[in-house]
Amino acid sequence: MALEGIEKVARNETGIEAVLGILRQRYGERFQTGQAIRQQHGHTTTYIPGQAPDGVLFAEVAEEVQDAVRICADHNVPVIPFGTGSSLEGHVNAPGGGISVDLSRMNKVLAVHAEDLDCTVEAGVTRTQLNDYLRDTGLFFPIDPGADASLGGMASTRASGTNAVRYGTMRENVMSVSAVMPDGRLINTAKRARKSSAGYDLTRLLVGSEGTLGIITSLTLKLHGIPQAITGGVCPFSTVEAACNAVIATIQMGVPVARIELINTLGMKAINAYSKLDYPEGPCLFLEFHGSDASVTEQAETFADIADEFGGGPFRWTGVAEERNKLWKARHDAYWAGMALRPGGQNLTTDVCVPISRLSDCIAETEADIAESGLIAPIVGHVGDGNFHVMVLIDPSDAEELKRAEAFVGRLNLRAIAMDGTCTGEHGIGQGKMQFLTHELGPAVDYMRAVKQAIDPKGIMNPGKIFSRTG
Amino acid sequence: MALEGIEKVARNETGIEAVLGILRQRYGERFQTGQAIRQQHGHTTTYIPGQAPDGVLFAEVAEEVQDAVRICADHNVPVIPFGTGSSLEGHVNAPGGGISVDLSRMNKVLAVHAEDLDCTVEAGVTRTQLNDYLRDTGLFFPIDPGADASLGGMASTRASGTNAVRYGTMRENVMSVSAVMPDGRLINTAKRARKSSAGYDLTRLLVGSEGTLGIITSLTLKLHGIPQAITGGVCPFSTVEAACNAVIATIQMGVPVARIELINTLGMKAINAYSKLDYPEGPCLFLEFHGSDASVTEQAETFADIADEFGGGPFRWTGVAEERNKLWKARHDAYWAGMALRPGGQNLTTDVCVPISRLSDCIAETEADIAESGLIAPIVGHVGDGNFHVMVLIDPSDAEELKRAEAFVGRLNLRAIAMDGTCTGEHGIGQGKMQFLTHELGPAVDYMRAVKQAIDPKGIMNPGKIFSRTG
Repeated sequence: MALEGIEKVARNETGIEAVLGILRQRYGERFQTGQAIRQQHGHTTTYIPGQAPDGVLFAEVAEEVQDAVRICADHNVPVIPFGTGSSLEGHVNAPGGGISVDLSRMNKVLAVHAEDLDCTVEAGVTRTQLNDYLRDTGLFFPIDPGADASLGGMASTRASGTNAVRYGTMRENVMSVSAVMPDGRLINTAKRARKSSAGYDLTRLLVGSEGTLGIITSLTLKLHGIPQAITGGVCPFSTVEAACNAVIATIQMGVPVARIELINTLGMKAINAYSKLDYPEGPCLFLEFHGSDASVTEQAETFADIADEFGGGPFRWTGVAEERNKLWKARHDAYWAGMALRPGGQNLTTDVCVPISRLSDCIAETEADIAESGLIAPIVGHVGDGNFHVMVLIDPSDAEELKRAEAFVGRLNLRAIAMDGTCTGEHGIGQGKMQFLTHELGPAVDYMRAVKQAIDPKGIMNPGKIFSRTG
Repeated sequence: MALEGIEKVARNETGIEAVLGILRQRYGERFQTGQAIRQQHGHTTTYIPGQAPDGVLFAEVAEEVQDAVRICADHNVPVIPFGTGSSLEGHVNAPGGGISVDLSRMNKVLAVHAEDLDCTVEAGVTRTQLNDYLRDTGLFFPIDPGADASLGGMASTRASGTNAVRYGTMRENVMSVSAVMPDGRLINTAKRARKSSAGYDLTRLLVGSEGTLGIITSLTLKLHGIPQAITGGVCPFSTVEAACNAVIATIQMGVPVARIELINTLGMKAINAYSKLDYPEGPCLFLEFHGSDASVTEQAETFADIADEFGGGPFRWTGVAEERNKLWKARHDAYWAGMALRPGGQNLTTDVCVPISRLSDCIAETEADIAESGLIAPIVGHVGDGNFHVMVLIDPSDAEELKRAEAFVGRLNLRAIAMDGTCTGEHGIGQGKMQFLTHELGPAVDYMRAVKQAIDPKGIMNPGKIFSRTG
């Protein structure tokens, strides 16, 4: 996306200068204003051009986040939270400059309550750090967006990934957050009860708010027991439609599938080439089943029957960990495999999500659109949830191609919305999808804006994201 | 609770007179101001005294709800949504008078999307109406708060009940709502995708907002496949502690129990007397398992082993529907069985919820407190979630006993909060628990108030509930 499509935020030079002076004096080496660090904090794994902040504070405790927010509030300067920078819609960019608050040093696991199947972590803990920590407990945190994102960042974008079909998204797995609000106060949104009817659901309000209402400093998360047994495998289909119909039947029959991922023909070619594998080069489903020994076998056999009914198969599955790991490594490397289809290229990634009854139509129309548009764009998707990614691979120096790609992405988003779906299943709105949010939810966006205005009247929290302030 | 504990809301006599005139003229017989109907709409299944509205509009379409809200907004008159009146914290009371909008005639199932496992219903549809409608689809809506509440009302209080341990609460099962906002506009909070990262989670903001942010007029709900097989049974324990430990072990082992309910000794005596049964008169767990034939047997046997390990049992279970129905009828009649312990009495019900690791302590301390307080108060609970009800049975004409009961309830709520739990697992704050919300969440309540002020600046939506406007 060219920068002209991005919401502009005016710079407050006087305020920024004042804040830089205060933070430099107060935090010394932990406040950095060097170009490399600033650019790295405004440079994301996205096609949206980087917009560097004016300085980066490496916070170590919540009180420092409060301090930074209060100083910025006093001077009307933007504050942008930063976890690992793996978000995909320009969330960490600083369109009006300001201070990036880097939470990566707030990486302590504060408590594991094994009996209650929950834990409390600082926002900078990444999902693999947490799972490494949990290794000896028999518990794990299932949500896996691919990147080793920070849990605070994952909450902020309402992330999900490959096994949301069974375990839910951050929406279902965050029990409470502690957050520094725009006035600098630290709140906790809920106690540790599994359910509550105590007032407005501030937890769910902050989850998915992309840092625009406050900075999450710690989170309490649901944990799950590591399954006794896991099986998984790959199943080819002759068409995307047949694969989607098998997905619908699997979900409808109540098979508690842990992962059910679609990769289309171009995606499979990319994976075979990149990972030196010999999977069938047509649409394939990658599956994983969790449960008891008896259950995972039953699930795999049930799916094999379903696949057969829709002309797919053979479904080759295994309980052997090394073989499963190879399979999921290939799936997780789909991003890099896709990128390798266009060396030196850039990726406009998308993440529409539709009701599964419309999934087959949506993918079929999208594949036709890709062909008509003359774009190189493999498809991978978390199809159990109706969510799929088109990776549009472009030459960043080719303005015409960029324009063509953006037009395609626009049609894709509107197509999903017209099918009663969403323009974003898991990446968030950020800078890139603001116009589509309005298409999707119409007047509801005005109430989001009212909430933003009420909680952040100065508009200092991650400005230029989700919606424009004025509508 | 005596009325002096209830938040006062000033009456706007001039505005109310004007609104009554307009609604009478516009809606004729569908707008009622007779005393009986008004009292019935301000008389709830609660210990809180009734506060009747000035008139009741029986709305038939969302546009009429919009119309009523706009008229009330023009004249600064309160609007109180009404489903079936089964809420328990005075939610439908009209402390400042105003208009009750009765949604019971908005009882159409608008769509069932069987392939997507969801449906869209008007807010007045009750849970049994919906399940009757779904009978031939192989699907059902699991949430069961006991009363045959309207689905709009259940969303508004974030209701749950006996099988939330497996299927979640209204928080997890409402995919989107249509709501009339305080300015009279109708919004839809989300499309029908299973997951979305599109902006603030207005769905979860409205779910549990108790009619204070808008009136839900329709909802899209997740549905679930009717399980192939169901088993259930009753298991006695020598102590509440042993029963709680069996619950913890069951949840931790990942047994996907559909219902796991505790009834304490007094509760079992009440049930036996009321339903003419001969269950053991000590603490018992009532359980239900959903799944395939093999799975429900495996689950029941696993639980029997766990019970045995904690000195409980024998666990008598059955797959025979009639026997299971008898069991769950007895459990559902626990409310009436409890009431029968004190003929002519009233019930101060409570619904604290704590992390399950604290459940045993919380119930033990509470039973001791009941004994010391000289109260008659059986305990029943959705213990898989750490949620339990103490039914405090009082003589409403005995002011001293009422005071003693209120003091006990206060200690119970604070005990649960001190154990990192909540004062309300499923009933909501309403008029009765406002002071405890502040104990529970402290400064977070200020941001709820800011959201309320932003969305309902005139304060017309169900005033006097959840928190005071001024803090």
